[in-house]
Amino acid sequence: MVSEYKKAGVDLNKVKEIHDYIAKEISSTYRNVLLGAGHYSGVINFNGVKLALHTDGVGTKTLLALKSGVIESVGIDCVAMNVNDLVSIGAKPLALVDYLAMERPMEDVVRGVMSGLIKGAVESDVEIIGGETAIMRDVINGFDLSCTALGIDVNEIKDGHDVKPGDVVLGLKSNGIHSNGYSLIRKLINDGKLSFNDWKDEIMKPTRIYVKPILSVLNMIKAAAHITGGSFSKLNRVTRYRIELKMPEPQDVFKEIEKAGVPHEEMYRVFNMGIGMVVFTSPEYKDDVIRSIRKFVEVYELGKVSEGNGIIIQTYKNTILHL
Amino acid sequence: MVSEYKKAGVDLNKVKEIHDYIAKEISSTYRNVLLGAGHYSGVINFNGVKLALHTDGVGTKTLLALKSGVIESVGIDCVAMNVNDLVSIGAKPLALVDYLAMERPMEDVVRGVMSGLIKGAVESDVEIIGGETAIMRDVINGFDLSCTALGIDVNEIKDGHDVKPGDVVLGLKSNGIHSNGYSLIRKLINDGKLSFNDWKDEIMKPTRIYVKPILSVLNMIKAAAHITGGSFSKLNRVTRYRIELKMPEPQDVFKEIEKAGVPHEEMYRVFNMGIGMVVFTSPEYKDDVIRSIRKFVEVYELGKVSEGNGIIIQTYKNTILHL
Repeated sequence: MVSEYKKAGVDLNKVKEIHDYIAKEISSTYRNVLLGAGHYSGVINFNGVKLALHTDGVGTKTLLALKSGVIESVGIDCVAMNVNDLVSIGAKPLALVDYLAMERPMEDVVRGVMSGLIKGAVESDVEIIGGETAIMRDVINGFDLSCTALGIDVNEIKDGHDVKPGDVVLGLKSNGIHSNGYSLIRKLINDGKLSFNDWKDEIMKPTRIYVKPILSVLNMIKAAAHITGGSFSKLNRVTRYRIELKMPEPQDVFKEIEKAGVPHEEMYRVFNMGIGMVVFTSPEYKDDVIRSIRKFVEVYELGKVSEGNGIIIQTYKNTILHL
Repeated sequence: MVSEYKKAGVDLNKVKEIHDYIAKEISSTYRNVLLGAGHYSGVINFNGVKLALHTDGVGTKTLLALKSGVIESVGIDCVAMNVNDLVSIGAKPLALVDYLAMERPMEDVVRGVMSGLIKGAVESDVEIIGGETAIMRDVINGFDLSCTALGIDVNEIKDGHDVKPGDVVLGLKSNGIHSNGYSLIRKLINDGKLSFNDWKDEIMKPTRIYVKPILSVLNMIKAAAHITGGSFSKLNRVTRYRIELKMPEPQDVFKEIEKAGVPHEEMYRVFNMGIGMVVFTSPEYKDDVIRSIRKFVEVYELGKVSEGNGIIIQTYKNTILHL
């Protein structure tokens, strides 16, 4: 069966093959690397100081930003996509650079993007220390935006190595769709199955930045997972043990997207379904972690880690999925 | 008069306006920044450790890479564009991440780019600790490649603050066109004024990596300037004093491009004209600096810094240009 996402031009298996090839190739350059490709961020050791670097873009959400005139959101998204991945491995975001490629100089895009980047930077307590703006008429349609963030203070790398059966899995509420799955959303819009006019505000909401809640519980959690491309199917990056989750009711926009023709299971492979960040903690810290995170964002107890393997999801419709 | 580069879709004045706007905006996020936007790299202070970050892409050279099948070069270019800028401010490159955006999964592109990135990384002694590969059919035509590099060991930031009249200006030979001016080159090719078939090998040569020669003279130079977009017209980033340079005979490919219809003066505003990196040193160190650099690459004594201001270039045709 060909997935809706593949029909929209994104073949997740093909992308995974490429990622695996790249991870293997670049590992030939490793000497001081503590965490390399395939993790939420790379970490390198410099004279005992652990430095984390992460790069990510906002995907094709830029096309909807142009269509709606809501540009600022993708600036925030771009910061979020990077700082959320940095805190996922236990690094404190320090600095950021952006790469903005445009088909032609577009002042509204530059202003909107910069405004969003700065809002995101303030929220994450990072400084934007540089960037590149490239005009590439024949390579870019509209604009493409990516960022790279530098993190430090990685006391203990949170790569999930000590996650074990019995650990608790918590979910931090998302702000909406965030920044993944937009090729599929655009296809639904273009096919007339989803009304951009009716759902524009929801679709253009920026990604939530989880820096403050995660840093507040860093010494009490074992791992965190930013829910982005591949969504819950990527939780086995954290642990190979079995993960069983009962998902809450997602925001209405996800139901509307599903109604537009996306299979129920695929929704949980492509979208965050209301949960933008997942944390793993041992039972004795659970209440403290929940209390601390709640000061910043709504948090759900989703489930637990158990013996065996696989990712088992009980959806909001009470369907059981094996991702 | 409309420049050839502007006709090719790149308005350097418009780009400069945007860069200035961005530099002003992002400076609002500065607290620990030692060197911000507008310099070759950003530098931030973390507990007394100076960390440098730089991001840059390879521009529209990717389209010619696809046309010729010479993909590896742009991988090397992308490393070079970043590490050369890092050493320009006196930072030792440590780690790198790449951002590869493609219109569809293209195995030959992934393999070629990775091979080039790894060659560049080995030459610059950096480790590739992560990256992002994005498939964006409706945003990207062909592929776009950018990287971000992290540098450390910035003992003294080489921002040119102590450059003064009497200082000597040296030029390190380029490997060819490197990675700037390709929108103009493609226009000349598309207009039938420049034969890509005849000049493919020269046009697709990778950017020279200057990490080893520059690091070898770091304690003897005051500043270094990577010659990229804007070319020699950007030397006033280093000093506002007058810079007088006598340029050597450039490689044949530059003469061929000029013959294809680019005004002589514009050649020195867009292309490196045979000099990929410029260093500033005081007269007493000149001979030692030249001796040390020569172990790695050909070096020319180009001229000197003097009282007054402006950038005065005596071209290989003995024309005097005020850039």
